[in-house]
Amino acid sequence: MSKSIFYHAGCPVCVSAEHDIINLVGAQHVEVVHLGDDRQRIDEAERAGVKSVPALVTPNGNVLHINFGASLVDVRG
Amino acid sequence: MSKSIFYHAGCPVCVSAEHDIINLVGAQHVEVVHLGDDRQRIDEAERAGVKSVPALVTPNGNVLHINFGASLVDVRG
Repeated sequence: MSKSIFYHAGCPVCVSAEHDIINLVGAQHVEVVHLGDDRQRIDEAERAGVKSVPALVTPNGNVLHINFGASLVDVRG
Repeated sequence: MSKSIFYHAGCPVCVSAEHDIINLVGAQHVEVVHLGDDRQRIDEAERAGVKSVPALVTPNGNVLHINFGASLVDVRG
């Protein structure tokens, strides 16, 4: 199984959701990307369809937006 | 591991998210509750903190609201 990608921006909502997703899916199945630290990946997230963080992009390319934390526009700043 | 509960109401957003969650977490780890068919469980969902569907309540009681489909108020109708 290829990995899901969890995009977040370090906000409390994101950190809480990250823990939940890792518990549910297993750390080995998720790549975690902090868009605040790894700003060159904001474009990649946007192309994948991410509108807000935290969001999980599944191996088949679907985007699950989870518990609204921040819009990607605000992350871009 | 105890099960998560996935609450939904049969809307297209819900069905798509249900497939994704089952693929990610494994069907044996998720109880799926259709609040449109199983209306007596709307109160239970609300007590668990569910504000909209689809939502996943994790084994430790956290609520992950996923890709807004419908508010619980609208499901209650």
